[in-house]
Amino acid sequence: MKWWGWGEEDVSFTHEDKPELAPFIQRAIDLDVSSATSSRVAFDDLDIAEPSLSSDLRAALDGILDGEWISTNPLDRVRHARGKSLRDLVRQRSGDLGRLPDVVVRPGGEADVRAILQAALEHDAVLIPFGGGTSISGSLEAPMSERRSTISMDLGRLDRVLEVDETSRLARVQAGAFGPHLEEQLNAKGWTLGHFPDSFTHSTLGGWIATRSSGMQSDRYGDVAELTRGLRVVTPSGLLVTRPVPSTSTGPSVREMVLGSEGRLGIITEATVHVRRIPASRVILGYLFPNWAESLAAMRDIAASEASPAVTRVSDAPETAFSFATRKTPTVLDRIKSKALQTYLGRRDIDPDEMCLSFIGYEGSERHVATQKKLVGRIVSRHGGLCIGSSPGELYDQKKFDTPYIRDYLLDRGVLGDVSETAAPWSLLPALYANVVAAAHAAFAELGVNGYLMCHLSHSYHAGACLYFTFAVKPSGGRAPLEEYDVVKSAIQQAFVDSGATLSHHHAVGTEHSSWLEQDISAPGVAMVKALFDGIDPGANLNPGKIV
Amino acid sequence: MKWWGWGEEDVSFTHEDKPELAPFIQRAIDLDVSSATSSRVAFDDLDIAEPSLSSDLRAALDGILDGEWISTNPLDRVRHARGKSLRDLVRQRSGDLGRLPDVVVRPGGEADVRAILQAALEHDAVLIPFGGGTSISGSLEAPMSERRSTISMDLGRLDRVLEVDETSRLARVQAGAFGPHLEEQLNAKGWTLGHFPDSFTHSTLGGWIATRSSGMQSDRYGDVAELTRGLRVVTPSGLLVTRPVPSTSTGPSVREMVLGSEGRLGIITEATVHVRRIPASRVILGYLFPNWAESLAAMRDIAASEASPAVTRVSDAPETAFSFATRKTPTVLDRIKSKALQTYLGRRDIDPDEMCLSFIGYEGSERHVATQKKLVGRIVSRHGGLCIGSSPGELYDQKKFDTPYIRDYLLDRGVLGDVSETAAPWSLLPALYANVVAAAHAAFAELGVNGYLMCHLSHSYHAGACLYFTFAVKPSGGRAPLEEYDVVKSAIQQAFVDSGATLSHHHAVGTEHSSWLEQDISAPGVAMVKALFDGIDPGANLNPGKIV
Repeated sequence: MKWWGWGEEDVSFTHEDKPELAPFIQRAIDLDVSSATSSRVAFDDLDIAEPSLSSDLRAALDGILDGEWISTNPLDRVRHARGKSLRDLVRQRSGDLGRLPDVVVRPGGEADVRAILQAALEHDAVLIPFGGGTSISGSLEAPMSERRSTISMDLGRLDRVLEVDETSRLARVQAGAFGPHLEEQLNAKGWTLGHFPDSFTHSTLGGWIATRSSGMQSDRYGDVAELTRGLRVVTPSGLLVTRPVPSTSTGPSVREMVLGSEGRLGIITEATVHVRRIPASRVILGYLFPNWAESLAAMRDIAASEASPAVTRVSDAPETAFSFATRKTPTVLDRIKSKALQTYLGRRDIDPDEMCLSFIGYEGSERHVATQKKLVGRIVSRHGGLCIGSSPGELYDQKKFDTPYIRDYLLDRGVLGDVSETAAPWSLLPALYANVVAAAHAAFAELGVNGYLMCHLSHSYHAGACLYFTFAVKPSGGRAPLEEYDVVKSAIQQAFVDSGATLSHHHAVGTEHSSWLEQDISAPGVAMVKALFDGIDPGANLNPGKIV
Repeated sequence: MKWWGWGEEDVSFTHEDKPELAPFIQRAIDLDVSSATSSRVAFDDLDIAEPSLSSDLRAALDGILDGEWISTNPLDRVRHARGKSLRDLVRQRSGDLGRLPDVVVRPGGEADVRAILQAALEHDAVLIPFGGGTSISGSLEAPMSERRSTISMDLGRLDRVLEVDETSRLARVQAGAFGPHLEEQLNAKGWTLGHFPDSFTHSTLGGWIATRSSGMQSDRYGDVAELTRGLRVVTPSGLLVTRPVPSTSTGPSVREMVLGSEGRLGIITEATVHVRRIPASRVILGYLFPNWAESLAAMRDIAASEASPAVTRVSDAPETAFSFATRKTPTVLDRIKSKALQTYLGRRDIDPDEMCLSFIGYEGSERHVATQKKLVGRIVSRHGGLCIGSSPGELYDQKKFDTPYIRDYLLDRGVLGDVSETAAPWSLLPALYANVVAAAHAAFAELGVNGYLMCHLSHSYHAGACLYFTFAVKPSGGRAPLEEYDVVKSAIQQAFVDSGATLSHHHAVGTEHSSWLEQDISAPGVAMVKALFDGIDPGANLNPGKIV
């Protein structure tokens, strides 16, 4: 993982194989992608503070782990200091490193985790768990004012699928397992977890649980909260073990207290999760809808129907335009389809600027997939939609994990791009969407910046859906870029809670969203979360400052 | 509701219209149903303590509610003292009333609830919410040692469906609404909640939420935890309001802290719940399986299949025998079926004593129901099962809410009947079942009593199921009946947790199950629940002593 950006060192996003993208970006935010460049600080020029680690604590850690698993290496510390929020990337690139952890430890198993947590408490140190480091909510950074020794615990060595209970369709998996390695181990036995967040390649099971992650196919497989049944968590009160039962009536759910806890209650070491057989058939079809209102209505009707698609996703018109602009050189097939599309558009008197691109995915037996497609097809038609076949969906499916690289591409050109997502009941979605669009554009105007905002519905439920907004701001040059970013990000988040939606559907609270928590879950809700954290971690040694 | 038993005064269970029942009971527990009788104390002979209510508290209540909603009436106090656990019924019948509430209050709305909770805290009184009073886990009784004034808050006046959001498929419902009245109000608009616990007739939405209830059709509609999205709860920190969003990432789930909280965090006044359109078609089919092992395997396969039945239920052989014994005079149709059955049994070389009766329910469009039936039918056949048509299922469906009356019928004859239910992963179910059967029969033997134990699988999930045990004990006469009951009940509960299952799938913890909580959710889990309760209710004014 890059210390200053997303993903692998040798992977990056480019406009060069996408003929329509450069002109699109020029139109959207008045950016010349070929000329604009922004420098970043070289690693060797970073000012890296010496670690502040008492000799007692160091001795305690040495008593637990071999030296190779206790690191004060500067690059290691820099990599573990933060996640990958836009704010994190901007600061890292400029050499503003914040409060680095003093040491990075890599436990080899649960016993190590217990001993390290015990040592942290005994020596009044701060302990912050680290999975893949992909948090975009500020869940991983120690407060700047933190004077106690700070330990980043990298769970990367706990990466195994320990057992698959084929009868129960449950797998015991260590919390540090990264998405691809986890799926590899399950796939080898014919199973899948089915959890594919955008961060999949670089995030871990423990991280998903600690932030209530949701994946592209969660409509079928469930959010990580549903997938996770049993938990093992090292807490200050000892090893918490919840049973992997399908449902239970044991008072307030302890399982649901750990979900989303961002390290505030302890270190998740293992989870027992649902697994499913790899489906015989898997299809993602593309659809076009005449406008956003019909798109939302169609998704709403699909959610109430007897169809159960694995993916329901639809982009608004600005995101549809962006998607079309990222196409590579058109193929013959594309041209033929484009003709059919022209006919469709002409016949239906549809405004191409209002058109919305949708992907709906189906999984299961051939027969089941065929039935589902028919059921959905009827609903799509009722809302004036058109199926455009499987190739757009396949392309999307192949490229979905590359999206986060775009932020670095934009930052290289001085542009701030980020995401904010939320969920709300179906009836509130149209006003929510309108309010967010208005708030973002008002912020762009107030700042005098060129900005772009686009949105897709990413998950459907019985009673509502997740709306996922992406925005880009070309700073005015008048104020610090992050200040301008904050104005836009805050306007969007405030529009969420003002519109009856939640501060985040699956990106967690961290520090980025904590100022909206009370407006979302009300003051007594915050009091309940605080009571829990304060009771379990009275010394605030566990990832302090996050959530509340 | 009877002060000494279940349900309506003029309704009771009888063997008289069930020709095979009396001989069955005679064989099962050596009881002559016609001769055995057991008396209960008349209300006028009860020794009812004077209410202990300070004049300050009384004045405060008088300032909030009109006199008619503040009751110190003896019958009211007796009715609100407890739920309907076997222990409750035995004690009420014998005149052992325990710690009666000093006053029963009936708030007319949320503002009343807030004021009463505030008054309770100011005057250091105990406040216990009361919905339908059907708890069988001891969730409603004040501790015998409680010296503070004790208020039972009956939510019965908060009984309205306030709003149906037809677009979102969400209804705002007051917490005191009883099952039938709630469904009536929804049905009038074409909607249903789909939550039908055995207690349906006499229990309330708030009670279901406070105990994590599950209903007969929860396979389709979801347990109450899934149905409940938004909550309004009056807490010592103020009015908790969670948004009815479909999913959220706001840290540990406050919604899931209220679910199952049994009044320990405050008073639930309102919930926003999923509603669905009344299905076009609804069918419950009966099936017979050759034995319990095949029954479990079939349910497990159905849960993984592309079918999604609304009900999956299968009884073990002892419960199947009991079901057959409760049939009324056989009809011609029955005799014909019985012939077909004989042929089936003969052909398959099936032992009638091993046979298991199952009900599987289907809901939706005619077409959907037909498809589901086919998918399930294939799985049933694979496990040697036979469909026996819709009449047994229809009968079961009509009579399902009458089951709780049987306990009073047995108590009238000196026999203690009760239930214990649990959930576990599929792979553990066979051993769990065997362990519970062994533990119960060992307890019967140890006590030297005639006992009967039977079981059904009542809910299926992806990774496991709920097993619901019913037992009856004819006391030996040597020890106090409740002591013998405790030996059996404890043996069953201990077998649950020793077998990797949970202490309860949907009957809550209360006081009956709290001694198994630590074994179930581990000591740190108990610490988390305690931290929450202690932080929110430091004076232990809210239903103290329950859960932990």
